[in-house]
This record gives sequence, structure tokens and C-alpha cells, in this order.
Amino acid sequence: MWDIGAGTGTIPVETGLLCRQGKILAVERDEEVANLIRRNCDRFSVNNVEIIEGSAPDCLATLQPSPDRVCIEGGRPIEEILKKVWQYLKPEGRVVATAANLESLYLISQALANLQARNVEVVQAGINRLETRGIHQTFTAVDPIFILSGEKF
Amino acid sequence: MWDIGAGTGTIPVETGLLCRQGKILAVERDEEVANLIRRNCDRFSVNNVEIIEGSAPDCLATLQPSPDRVCIEGGRPIEEILKKVWQYLKPEGRVVATAANLESLYLISQALANLQARNVEVVQAGINRLETRGIHQTFTAVDPIFILSGEKF
Amino acid sequence: MWDIGAGTGTIPVETGLLCRQGKILAVERDEEVANLIRRNCDRFSVNNVEIIEGSAPDCLATLQPSPDRVCIEGGRPIEEILKKVWQYLKPEGRVVATAANLESLYLISQALANLQARNVEVVQAGINRLETRGIHQTFTAVDPIFILSGEKF
Amino acid sequence: MWDIGAGTGTIPVETGLLCRQGKILAVERDEEVANLIRRNCDRFSVNNVEIIEGSAPDCLATLQPSPDRVCIEGGRPIEEILKKVWQYLKPEGRVVATAANLESLYLISQALANLQARNVEVVQAGINRLETRGIHQTFTAVDPIFILSGEKF
Repeated sequence: MWDIGAGTGTIPVETGLLCRQGKILAVERDEEVANLIRRNCDRFSVNNVEIIEGSAPDCLATLQPSPDRVCIEGGRPIEEILKKVWQYLKPEGRVVATAANLESLYLISQALANLQARNVEVVQAGINRLETRGIHQTFTAVDPIFILSGEKF
Repeated sequence: MWDIGAGTGTIPVETGLLCRQGKILAVERDEEVANLIRRNCDRFSVNNVEIIEGSAPDCLATLQPSPDRVCIEGGRPIEEILKKVWQYLKPEGRVVATAANLESLYLISQALANLQARNVEVVQAGINRLETRGIHQTFTAVDPIFILSGEKF
Repeated sequence: MWDIGAGTGTIPVETGLLCRQGKILAVERDEEVANLIRRNCDRFSVNNVEIIEGSAPDCLATLQPSPDRVCIEGGRPIEEILKKVWQYLKPEGRVVATAANLESLYLISQALANLQARNVEVVQAGINRLETRGIHQTFTAVDPIFILSGEKF
Repeated sequence: MWDIGAGTGTIPVETGLLCRQGKILAVERDEEVANLIRRNCDRFSVNNVEIIEGSAPDCLATLQPSPDRVCIEGGRPIEEILKKVWQYLKPEGRVVATAANLESLYLISQALANLQARNVEVVQAGINRLETRGIHQTFTAVDPIFILSGEKF
């Protein structure tokens, strides 16, 4: 699996734990953030994650092996990244991309249509949490996120 | 209309504008907040709102006239307030109450059932706004609120 | 106010009741649906709504007077309608448009940006209702809607 | 792990796949539904799930071994089930329970407080999906669910 724009490493760490036999490439352009992924992998004894300090889409050409699954959490221009990723993605591979803003939502949706992705799903997750405030448990909202995915033919 | 726990006066001001012939009693126990309602009414040239500095349920006995509609935005214990309000509410009158926490939600729901309220409705409103952050319009969530209402037989 | 794609007439009826001095033009291309608006206006004794059987954007040129407010509930192509509406809209007038699908959401958002609308707001309303099912009150979701609005300079 | 009110077996099958070394007891009182779990386990080659046809809380006394984790998807009275489960739960074990109606939400929340559960979390998940309707991708809402969890001291 490739994880592009891996941030603090939540996805690589979770995936690494769930798929002990899998190999995860985590791409992150910010050096400090990349170090944070390393620390989080160590903390959870995850040793099947390789961290790549680099910028998508440029660095994608050098990644080995080709992915069965790709998670796109960030990067720009998003439609370029998606197009490149599609090129390297194995047949029947699946791409998942997240969008927190309207433009990304639309661009990713359009890009998946242009790439003739199969089984496209777009889901908006909205989460409320009960938080203790004084003696009450108050409902507080987490900012919503859109999760788009599609398969290569 | 009675508005109990009127806060900054959003409900009284809006209602005052929409029902020019109506009479609105806004109950607020905090003196400074009550002054704020006054200022907001002046600002929007609303002159059919009477502001009562007092604490529900105690102050309700003195309010005149009896209400056709009651909006409960706060106060405690909420089930006591609702019971008292019900007593003064005219037949076929409607009460609307808001809840931001789990306990209020349950207590108001139970109280409406115990009072044998008709046409009870419970609605949870969850609002996301697109906010401009840098060059993007990001989805941000507003904390959800429950709106309960019911009619007197 | 102009209401374009007025459907069953909820918006015209509500607006007609709230603004007794206002004049509302309700545009609806389907004859039967237009008749339904008429019946709903009669039912609520609303007599400041004029119903226009016609298709936006073509019919807009004939509408009189120019609007202070426009509500766009439907019609296609949405960006053409918005552009025409903008032309007729009085200065400082406000347009509100609803979107239930991703494409409309994006097109309206883009159109408002292209028209250099001021005070643009995009809100997604998500409503859950408690519905009685057997002995329980179950949370059920209403499909979400996006409400976009902006002002003419 | 114990899964109480296992329904079609989604949770047992997923957990069985993720924790190959784990042992899952799936409790389901409806015989036909229990057979469905069996078929779903076979379909996904999951062989670490044991299916118990029985009714909670009565059947819980016979389950072996004691659980590290319990998932409560149904059953009544819910507070009795939770109390029994707590008795059998190992120290530092965690219980997760779902609620689709207001009463369950409140009863589970109260029961966790009464049991002095630690690290209680209450999350409401609201999901919207983009569904293709004609030429458009329309936002449709899935009914929300509350997920409550807590740990034994």
C-alpha cells in the first residue's frame, strides 16, 4: 500500500498492524512530520512501513513495488496525483482519497470519472461526540470529511 | 409567546419582527444578558418584547398574559420548568425546547411524554458550513442541537 | 421575490405569509405542479403570490418587477439561470440556491465566485428525526441539502 | 470477544479476519439468523467464530472463556445485559454498545456511569452517501447510530 500525504502516520500505523505481511510506503514531504511517522511506528512496534520524504506526484515514479491499494490524504494538484497513481496501480487495485474542502471533493470525483474507475463510492462521515462539560455531556461536532474511492479496471 | 432563557435575544427579536401584533415575554436571569436583549431589540426596532429579569420556574407565576407558545432555551431543573409552563400554556398551545446535552434531551423527551403532549417532534439539526481557509473552502461543523416540541391537549 | 422551480409552493406560501406587503413570483414549468401551488396558496389564504408557468432561464426576461431576493430551487443549466438572475437582481439583492447533488453544489459555488457575489455562504443542513417505531423512538436521517447564497454588489 | 445480538455476523466475521488468533463468541437468539452467521463465516473462511443460539442475558453464564472485549448490538433489557456482561468482563476489558433509539442511548449511558466504567466514549456516526440518480450524484443520508464504550476498572 502507498499512503500519500501520510501526516502523523495514523493510516500507515493502523494498516501496518492489521496487515503484518503487507508492505506500506508512506510518502510525506515535510521532514519533521516524516520523523513523527517514524516515532509513531516505533511506538506501536510497526516495522513494515517505509517512510519516503518526498513530494507527490514527482516522487511516485521511484516507489517500489507497485501498489494494490493507495490512500491519498493530501498533495496538490490532486488530479495530477490521482492520474499518476492510477498509472502505477495494479489492475483491480483500489484508491481511497479524502477531501475536506469543496474543490478537492469535486476534483477527485471528476478525476475518478475521467479515469473510468469502477465501484466508485463517495461517503461523507459526520461524527458527533459526547463531551463532558461541567456536569453535562454535551454533543460536539467533528468537522466532516468526504471519503472517495474507486477501482482500476 | 414566552421565551425562557432568552440569552442574547435571537428568538425574541426574530419573533418580534415576524409577529408585529404578537407580545413576547423574554425571561433571562442574568442582568447583563437581559440588558443585551434590550439593546438587540432597540437595534432592530423591535418594541413588542418585554424583558423579565428572573429565574424560571419561580418567576413564571407572575407572567401575564398566559402564552400560546413557549420556547425553552435553558433553565434548570428542566422538567420542573416544563411542568410549570404546561400549567400556564393555553389549550392547543405549543412548547419548543432545545437540548445540547444527552441528559436534557432525555429529560425533556420524558417530560413531554408524562405531560401527554400531542404531536411531539424531536429533531436533531446538524449544520456544516463552508469556510474559506487560505485558497480553499473547508467544511466545518457546527455543534448539533436537538429541538423538541409538543402541543397541549 | 422570485422563486424559481417552486415545486409544491412551500417557499412562496411561507414567504407570502411572512411578508404580507411583499410580492412573490413563483416560476414552475410543470402545469400540474403550478396548479398545486395555486391550491396551496388558497389553502393558506396567501394572495401575494403570482404563479408563472414557464421554464427558466427563458421566461425570466418577462418577469416584472425585478427582484430583491431570488430563491433557486431547481432548473437547468443552473449556471445559466444564476447568470440571468444576477442580471435582473437589484443591487444589494440576495440569491439563495439549493443543491442536493455534487454537481449542482460545485456549479453554483463556481457561478457565485464568477459573478463576484459578496457574503457568500454555503451551509449543509443535516436533519435527524426521532420517529416512533413500535415502542422505541428511533433516529432517522433526512437526506442532506446544501444551501448557497450570495449578494450582488 | 463476545458479540451479543450478532445479527448477520458483520462484526464476528470482520473481527475473526482481523484477529486470527482471537476467539469470538457470537450470541444470536434467532435460529435462522444464527445460520446466516454460519454461512457468512464459511463464505469468508473464518473459523475462529463460535455461534451460540441463545438469549442474553440468560445464556451469558454458560459462555467460556470470559471476554476481553464485548460488543452489544442488541438484546433487552439492555441495562441488565450490560450489568451481567460487566460481571464476566476481564479487568481492563472494554465494552462497546450501539444504540439506534433515544431510550437505549440513555439507558446504556446511565448503565456505564453506574458501573463506573472508565474512558467512556459516546460517538454519533452520521453518514451521507453520494448515490447515482439519473445523471446526478445525489447526497443520501444513512440513519445515524450512537456507539458507546467503556472500560472495566
